[in-house]
Amino acid sequence: MKDLNINYEGKPCYKICFRPDFNDLLSVFNTEVNRKYDNICIVSDSNVAKLYLAEVTSIFEKTGSKVSSFCFEAGEASKNLDTVNQLYEHLILERYTRNSLLVALGGGVVGDLTGFAAATFLRGIDFIQIPTTLLSQVDSSVGGKTGVDFKGYKNMVGAFYMPRLVYMNLGTLNSLDNYNFACGMGEVIKSALIADDKFYQWIKDNKDAVNGKDYDALAHTVSECCKIKGHVVEIDPKEKGIRAYLNFGHTLGHAIEKLSDFKLGHGQCVSLGMVCALHLSNKLGFINESEILDVINVLKEYNLPVSVSGLKNTDILSASKSDKKMTDSKIKFIILKNIGEADSYLEFSDEDLLFAIDKVLE
Amino acid sequence: MKDLNINYEGKPCYKICFRPDFNDLLSVFNTEVNRKYDNICIVSDSNVAKLYLAEVTSIFEKTGSKVSSFCFEAGEASKNLDTVNQLYEHLILERYTRNSLLVALGGGVVGDLTGFAAATFLRGIDFIQIPTTLLSQVDSSVGGKTGVDFKGYKNMVGAFYMPRLVYMNLGTLNSLDNYNFACGMGEVIKSALIADDKFYQWIKDNKDAVNGKDYDALAHTVSECCKIKGHVVEIDPKEKGIRAYLNFGHTLGHAIEKLSDFKLGHGQCVSLGMVCALHLSNKLGFINESEILDVINVLKEYNLPVSVSGLKNTDILSASKSDKKMTDSKIKFIILKNIGEADSYLEFSDEDLLFAIDKVLE
Repeated sequence: MKDLNINYEGKPCYKICFRPDFNDLLSVFNTEVNRKYDNICIVSDSNVAKLYLAEVTSIFEKTGSKVSSFCFEAGEASKNLDTVNQLYEHLILERYTRNSLLVALGGGVVGDLTGFAAATFLRGIDFIQIPTTLLSQVDSSVGGKTGVDFKGYKNMVGAFYMPRLVYMNLGTLNSLDNYNFACGMGEVIKSALIADDKFYQWIKDNKDAVNGKDYDALAHTVSECCKIKGHVVEIDPKEKGIRAYLNFGHTLGHAIEKLSDFKLGHGQCVSLGMVCALHLSNKLGFINESEILDVINVLKEYNLPVSVSGLKNTDILSASKSDKKMTDSKIKFIILKNIGEADSYLEFSDEDLLFAIDKVLE
Repeated sequence: MKDLNINYEGKPCYKICFRPDFNDLLSVFNTEVNRKYDNICIVSDSNVAKLYLAEVTSIFEKTGSKVSSFCFEAGEASKNLDTVNQLYEHLILERYTRNSLLVALGGGVVGDLTGFAAATFLRGIDFIQIPTTLLSQVDSSVGGKTGVDFKGYKNMVGAFYMPRLVYMNLGTLNSLDNYNFACGMGEVIKSALIADDKFYQWIKDNKDAVNGKDYDALAHTVSECCKIKGHVVEIDPKEKGIRAYLNFGHTLGHAIEKLSDFKLGHGQCVSLGMVCALHLSNKLGFINESEILDVINVLKEYNLPVSVSGLKNTDILSASKSDKKMTDSKIKFIILKNIGEADSYLEFSDEDLLFAIDKVLE
């Protein structure tokens, strides 16, 4: 699979490499980053560290830099400023300078938190990403969004900050459980739906290869998503326009995620949010019933939920209004005009939204 | 006094306006920022709020935006992540969005902290600065450095983030006490020493007008400093090269500031640090004894300390080594080659540094 070059503000910014293992991480790092750091801190969580920290540490030790690691308890509950503060303390204690590097080894929580620490420690130091989950590979490796949750609000505090390199060992997906693999597929299907009907068709046609974690199928899946996101972000880096399309399924999805106390995964909630958004698209005269059923069928085939129990429609509506993607207190909804073509819409009434929410409540 | 246009990365970025009062703040805001915000939060401290919050609030209320305010206890001790967290909470409670604005009304602590909150809330919202102290007018209004202290380390956490506008009411300097006015003059004299011998001469020749807070003299002083800093920052926005010259007097100054538990002001400590740095410059064969005495005399005329009691030279040395301006654990020192011309030097021995520190110890 060819490496992907990501631009930012019209200029080449960093490379995303797709690999089956960590074998050429050192040579890629030397070629692409090409800087001698005094210190390198590998940031990971309690799950991922067990699997890959030793291997990745030994690779970075070969650079001649002093290598340390910082690990925190896995899970969204760690994605907050307390963990960031502990990381700052580690960096100060180990005498990290502006010439030091952070390496995010893990899923989206690790990547977002590490990126935010890198963006703000000494007003910004370099970082690279080694995403180990499907969700983080397709979602967090492009676009420079970093951040943490604050008082239960997702990604309330953060920064736009670009990594120097993203290295994906797709072999790490073999250690991913079905639930987390499905979670990533939620974002994959979203990417196809908003931007590329051919890729949507490919996802439908290749479910056995993808679910079976065939390397070529995975590499195609991940790189197509990165291409789609890279294209959107290049046009609209700061989410003033079409970047918002990436939020398809996310506004109600985030509300459900918050109300479930983060017991439901991000991709699972996006799946539910997309079903709602398809019904809203249908209400505007786009996307017919059979297309909705087709998408619901694909979501099911990738083990994603299309309904949820135990939540109230009015709670979801009210939680979505406190989400940050509001403009003048109106919720900006992303809808589909066609499979593979997104648009935004501001004028849904509470009644419309409750109608759509009810479609996923058991 | 002509307004000053500040560029960032080669493009026009924001304007600095010099005024004797707040009379045209509204019209300048409308012309220069030209955006309708849903919410505007004026961030200030307990000292400045008493003097100017009501007037500035009433001006921003005329924009039609909802205006709120957030005030914290004046002083460097408030410049930390706890205060930032309280500000985030205020913004969430008041439903601030990406289309909201923060206004920093106060000195350097208010400006740095507000800028950092703006840089990180929702991954970045707009902010403008209304600096009310000489130090913040000459030092913090140019260059986009924002941040807070962390565990006693100055500006350990922060971001580079540009304001949309800087509006200076130089009339606010009349409410500044002599100590804080002198503090600002420390940075003014620094700017002249590193970049402009003619301006240094002007400062010597106009001490009565400047100390007497004559409007024209103040406007010249502040705008010259902003020009010098603007020029340096335009060439080197991220402090990879000559921007470090602005740290003249700061490495040992910060160490003294920290050891004094922030009881000595920033400008006072920079004054002490500059005296040390002049002796180091002399040691390298630059800056002769009579030039050192000349600068010491100017510092005294502007009520700045040139010596300090109660500190140990080894403590200052060791504190300066934990300062963040280290490269490969060597302290990067800024020295003068001539009055008005700076350079950097990495190779001072501990003995050299202790010799220079001793020059300011009583």
